[in-house]
Amino acid sequence: MALIDIINHKKLGFALSAGEIQEFAGAAKDPGTPDYQLAALLMAIRINGMDARETAELTLAMAHTGDMLSPDVGGVAVDKHSTGGVGDTTTLVLAPLVAACGGRVLKMSGRGLGHTGGTVDKLESIPGFQTELPEGDFLRIVREVGCCVVGQTGELAPADKRLYALRDVTGTVDSIPLIASSIMSKKLAGGAQAIVLDVKCGSGALMKTPEDSLLLARAMVDIGQRNGRRMAALITRMDEPLGSHVGNALEVKEAIDVLAGRVGGPLLQVSLALGTRMLLLSGVADTAQQAQEMLDSALRAGSGLSKLAEMITAQGGDARVCFDTGLLPQARFQRPVKAKATGWLSRMDTELAGEAARLLGAGRRRKDDVIDPAVGYMTLKRLGDKVVAGEAVARLYYNDEALAVQAEEALQSALTVSPDKPSPAPWILARIDQDGKETSPA
Amino acid sequence: MALIDIINHKKLGFALSAGEIQEFAGAAKDPGTPDYQLAALLMAIRINGMDARETAELTLAMAHTGDMLSPDVGGVAVDKHSTGGVGDTTTLVLAPLVAACGGRVLKMSGRGLGHTGGTVDKLESIPGFQTELPEGDFLRIVREVGCCVVGQTGELAPADKRLYALRDVTGTVDSIPLIASSIMSKKLAGGAQAIVLDVKCGSGALMKTPEDSLLLARAMVDIGQRNGRRMAALITRMDEPLGSHVGNALEVKEAIDVLAGRVGGPLLQVSLALGTRMLLLSGVADTAQQAQEMLDSALRAGSGLSKLAEMITAQGGDARVCFDTGLLPQARFQRPVKAKATGWLSRMDTELAGEAARLLGAGRRRKDDVIDPAVGYMTLKRLGDKVVAGEAVARLYYNDEALAVQAEEALQSALTVSPDKPSPAPWILARIDQDGKETSPA
Repeated sequence: MALIDIINHKKLGFALSAGEIQEFAGAAKDPGTPDYQLAALLMAIRINGMDARETAELTLAMAHTGDMLSPDVGGVAVDKHSTGGVGDTTTLVLAPLVAACGGRVLKMSGRGLGHTGGTVDKLESIPGFQTELPEGDFLRIVREVGCCVVGQTGELAPADKRLYALRDVTGTVDSIPLIASSIMSKKLAGGAQAIVLDVKCGSGALMKTPEDSLLLARAMVDIGQRNGRRMAALITRMDEPLGSHVGNALEVKEAIDVLAGRVGGPLLQVSLALGTRMLLLSGVADTAQQAQEMLDSALRAGSGLSKLAEMITAQGGDARVCFDTGLLPQARFQRPVKAKATGWLSRMDTELAGEAARLLGAGRRRKDDVIDPAVGYMTLKRLGDKVVAGEAVARLYYNDEALAVQAEEALQSALTVSPDKPSPAPWILARIDQDGKETSPA
Repeated sequence: MALIDIINHKKLGFALSAGEIQEFAGAAKDPGTPDYQLAALLMAIRINGMDARETAELTLAMAHTGDMLSPDVGGVAVDKHSTGGVGDTTTLVLAPLVAACGGRVLKMSGRGLGHTGGTVDKLESIPGFQTELPEGDFLRIVREVGCCVVGQTGELAPADKRLYALRDVTGTVDSIPLIASSIMSKKLAGGAQAIVLDVKCGSGALMKTPEDSLLLARAMVDIGQRNGRRMAALITRMDEPLGSHVGNALEVKEAIDVLAGRVGGPLLQVSLALGTRMLLLSGVADTAQQAQEMLDSALRAGSGLSKLAEMITAQGGDARVCFDTGLLPQARFQRPVKAKATGWLSRMDTELAGEAARLLGAGRRRKDDVIDPAVGYMTLKRLGDKVVAGEAVARLYYNDEALAVQAEEALQSALTVSPDKPSPAPWILARIDQDGKETSPA
């Protein structure tokens, strides 16, 4: 079967057969396949779609183009995946908390492009922290400590790697089957037995509406279940940064503050909700209530923070940061971003808010860009808060004046102050449980 | 404006602006533009379409990426374009006939891939015939003789050249806006002031139905008219070879036989219908009836054949072939293809019939394939004819026994003999006149 025949089938709107999907994944891995044929097929898929069966088969076929790991971590290996948002550092909060409750969290995280680095970039702002570990080492850490966060190991889903890069330059990112199969192919290859998905929804997310977010979540849950994984998903709001800190070291600091019990808010709320699902899928807790109580008591006892310190030590980092966040990289300059009007904060365009962080140097535009771990900002107001003209709504942490000017401009353009008090939606918009039941928690 | 934005607009189904289309054509010409982006955009256009304005603008923009000729031929330069069929050698009949009536036929023809070569390949089977002439020479020949057939000169529509090659390998050939803009970009650049289109319809043509053929014809007529050209189009049947000869020298022989008045049939009928439109568009005749009478009388007087001889001489060829077709290249072997059943010939799959000629060596599969000018076949039966089992339905002309076996197999599989007498459709299925009026001639 030639790739051109597969392109023609999808172009005409047919569902691809299992054999055609195998061929497509193999062709995507094969360096001899011309990019232009893959690009044409990706666009045909973007416009004409793929059904649940096709999507699940593509995912597994892409996973099988590379290594398939079966990690032995002395329990159910549980992973969490966020589709990406701003100030979204739940992994740093929940991985140690879930481990403190007896879960086994094996988190492989990419670096990626974006407003800040990925979770591994954030952790690397801790002096000495290693994210490139031999497989034997990180599995031992999961077994002994209960959690470990590493960069992607081996060659996971190389077909996806190539298609992902092509999608970015051919206008084919915004396809639910392609997003779902891309994410899940790496998860299946990584070998997690239980996966909790955090599908972000809003101006700072790939999915702009709850409806699209649910479609994506259902597609990913379906793929995982068809491949024998325990799955659950939350749809969470991303129309303002989740945490109040945006930036690599700044987000580590906030995670530590949360684990130390000094700070609450939406970052804690969403982390606990995700952690609850992780404990349930792991079989560590039998009911959601039991899971919540375990997490609450770990938080109160400070055992999440101790677990983070253990993990940092195991991964070669300086665990003293957990007790003195002043040891994290610090930006040389700070300055306030002031409200231009009086009223209620009614909009914080989160794509622009992310761009402000990237402009400061917190993220990459291209693969070889170097991240400045110290820079970023802290928001001082949330959607629905009262603001007075001239009052600080955020604080920039920066090392370069010219970049700070650009970042402040982006941040200002992200903000709208209105005369009427808005009512932000709840942080958790919907949930899909392991049994497929969908709910919209209050 | 970045190409990725244009891809995204078309992906979402928007009509592209004039500026976006200019950018697209420029990007297609620019070797720095990656093929994968063009491939993605072509697929988005294939699936989501382009309206008449977009198609016309793309055509002109592609034409302007290369040379724009304004040939001075001492009258209205008229061209004819066929979308391609089997045994379709109308150019060799009508160019001299129209010239004999006072028309000025400037025909630029590609070589292309296919079951036989293009018109220039057919003419090159005449000993000495030159199709690569300096512009000054071929314009002089049109002025002095009235017709000249040359290969594409200069760099006409290089953006189209690249897109055409990409479409072939990305499943994006079958798009009416892309077909229309590709054909017409070269016609606009070539500088013909009047263009008669012969849109083929049926199993041997790109367009399989009269409806699609009319859509394509309307699109091309519209493009030409928007760019100040005089346009007309015929939709003609292509569910069996038009002439009875298929092959390069064989088709030259048949054209000569038709011009000499020895042979009639559908090749003559369609040539006269196209020639009528050419004389009308050229302003040489005022009414269709007058044009027909001029062509008939030229045919009866043999002045079409004299004109062909003049053109062959002017282009360096041996004009004696016009009076002794035995001087054309001859295949070493002949053999009959015999009917396998008794009944009526009800089907002659024309794509397969074309493939039979290509298998013999009459056409190219790849650009660097060498054509054998002598080989091909003659059909002895037409759709609707009575055939008796064992009776010859065609005669192969070949130089290689193994190729003849393959070709005979293809030809046999193209034929169906049925117990019931079929009623073939008329050869001319529809017509679009200069004023846009559409008719279905009896």
